[in-house]
Amino acid sequence: MSERQQTTATISRLSTSDAAFHHRLDELLDWEGVSDKAVQARVEEILASVKQRGDAAVVEATNRFDRLAVTSMDELTLTPEQLESAFHNLPAEQREALSSAAERIKRYHERQKPNSWQYEEADGTVLGQKVTPLDRAGIYVPGGKAAYPSSVLMNAIPAHVAGVREIVMVVPTPDGVLNELVLAAAHLAGVDYVFTIGGAQAVAALAYGTESVPRVDKIVGPGNIYVATAKRAVFGQVGIDMIAGPSEIMVVSDGVTDPEWLAMDLFSQAEHDEDAQAILVSWDAEHLDAVEAAIERLLPSLEREAIVRESLRRRGALVLCQDAQEAITLINRVAPEHLELSVAAPIHG
Amino acid sequence: MSERQQTTATISRLSTSDAAFHHRLDELLDWEGVSDKAVQARVEEILASVKQRGDAAVVEATNRFDRLAVTSMDELTLTPEQLESAFHNLPAEQREALSSAAERIKRYHERQKPNSWQYEEADGTVLGQKVTPLDRAGIYVPGGKAAYPSSVLMNAIPAHVAGVREIVMVVPTPDGVLNELVLAAAHLAGVDYVFTIGGAQAVAALAYGTESVPRVDKIVGPGNIYVATAKRAVFGQVGIDMIAGPSEIMVVSDGVTDPEWLAMDLFSQAEHDEDAQAILVSWDAEHLDAVEAAIERLLPSLEREAIVRESLRRRGALVLCQDAQEAITLINRVAPEHLELSVAAPIHG
Repeated sequence: MSERQQTTATISRLSTSDAAFHHRLDELLDWEGVSDKAVQARVEEILASVKQRGDAAVVEATNRFDRLAVTSMDELTLTPEQLESAFHNLPAEQREALSSAAERIKRYHERQKPNSWQYEEADGTVLGQKVTPLDRAGIYVPGGKAAYPSSVLMNAIPAHVAGVREIVMVVPTPDGVLNELVLAAAHLAGVDYVFTIGGAQAVAALAYGTESVPRVDKIVGPGNIYVATAKRAVFGQVGIDMIAGPSEIMVVSDGVTDPEWLAMDLFSQAEHDEDAQAILVSWDAEHLDAVEAAIERLLPSLEREAIVRESLRRRGALVLCQDAQEAITLINRVAPEHLELSVAAPIHG
Repeated sequence: MSERQQTTATISRLSTSDAAFHHRLDELLDWEGVSDKAVQARVEEILASVKQRGDAAVVEATNRFDRLAVTSMDELTLTPEQLESAFHNLPAEQREALSSAAERIKRYHERQKPNSWQYEEADGTVLGQKVTPLDRAGIYVPGGKAAYPSSVLMNAIPAHVAGVREIVMVVPTPDGVLNELVLAAAHLAGVDYVFTIGGAQAVAALAYGTESVPRVDKIVGPGNIYVATAKRAVFGQVGIDMIAGPSEIMVVSDGVTDPEWLAMDLFSQAEHDEDAQAILVSWDAEHLDAVEAAIERLLPSLEREAIVRESLRRRGALVLCQDAQEAITLINRVAPEHLELSVAAPIHG
């Protein structure tokens, strides 16, 4: 593992004309470096314990990591009635916003549904592709630092459109904090089971099944470094959508956009997590100065200032390049896999 | 990790009516258990060294694992002329068989090509899905124990159909053995680069790039336990098709099929690798006895007897179930992920 350059600046400034540029960019992008051996060892231990001891191990890990004191999975299970009342108790405006989002997501994914097809060759051989819905999908919804009803809708609704028979949702409730919008979205999206568990223990429960949690065929949805590492480890045992890793944003600016807007765009992902990555590319050096100044100016006004500072310091960058063509080359360098994945499902989180 | 039952029988006999059936089936299916910590540690070491030292590390690992004595990547690189002459030097019958297979594979995958689409909502929002070919695909072709020109065609041709710009192929040549059919298939399928490297070092070279090997966006193709473990580890850095793991076959028989045919079907996958898995399910106990007898009778006639014996002993099973309905439940239990993946591409290997 290469040594990371220590910096006290708010955000790194890179230039493609520096001899060490590609090396520094590689270091910055090195997300594997983030998922270090200590995290992997802890995740493997949790996976093994849930596989072996089921519910008991899930309860223990949840008490430990989410600072709870429950005695059984019953206390970590939500009933359909709880979801329904969360939906009906929402302010009318929020209920309508959720319903409208659900309808739009449904319409979008209906166009994405692949068809079965077959054809016969001259010698009578029949070839084809049969698309069959999975029996059971598991959706991971982040809790804690922020709440994402959009994750519920954007993962559960496509599964319904595909014809998946059952949807099992997990969402951690650190310190017992439950987000009503998330529960309401689960009701609206027709989720069949909700367990208030998270982290590697939730991924393990979905992948291996426990006495309470039904084993699923595929796990989808974003999560933190423990969730991403656990999804990588159970891939093969179950399907996964992707290794979501931390949130990432890459913005290319021609120098005309308001620097404060660009600063806010970078914040919008940097605030997710200390591991999040926000990169701005431009061929206008003065414009990058202006964005850096806007970042410094706006940072103290952010509710999540500490997290944003940490992620910008560790993984953010303002990159000066030669021209628009080089910016495109950089995008392709940084994000080939992400562009590919965005074909399969809109990235959100 | 659970203790594996030691058995001296040629192949395990299981029955769904045994109390311990589900536990024993889980043990048998536990492919994660096969990819043990020792393999993971070795793979991680190889990945790190190739990432850091590029070609030099690839050459070292190749000399060591494939028992070669080359001094540079030049000696592990095939020229387009070598591929072309391999094709033209084939017996006419083989050349025509390859060409006919290539044509059929092309026709099949042309029907699979997804389209871009978009639509406008009432308020003017434009939503859609844009499908863009990757710049560069890496295809892993197993060498060594057996040679698979079909792997070349079935992985390179879909990439071409999708519009991928460059295709980089890796194929190990243990003890310097080169398969002419594989090279001919690479010529026919329009592969741009061929490196005679394999294992985790080849996966690392494709994922990170080296001085000689271009970095790819996605790695596809089957391989042994080191390849599968390496693909899992680089997933995220690049896309992968799947964690192919060992070859697997699951046959359901109603008791009418010739037991010797069924034995040969099981052998067809068991012979790939000591980790391969061959499972036969039937609700006719006498029929299973007949298949077991056929296995014992035919085994000594096999060229790869030792490998087949080892994989049947460790991971094979003849499973007695109650009826056809229970057989279907078992298939879904054993192979949900594989059935899902088979939607994306025909499984071969």
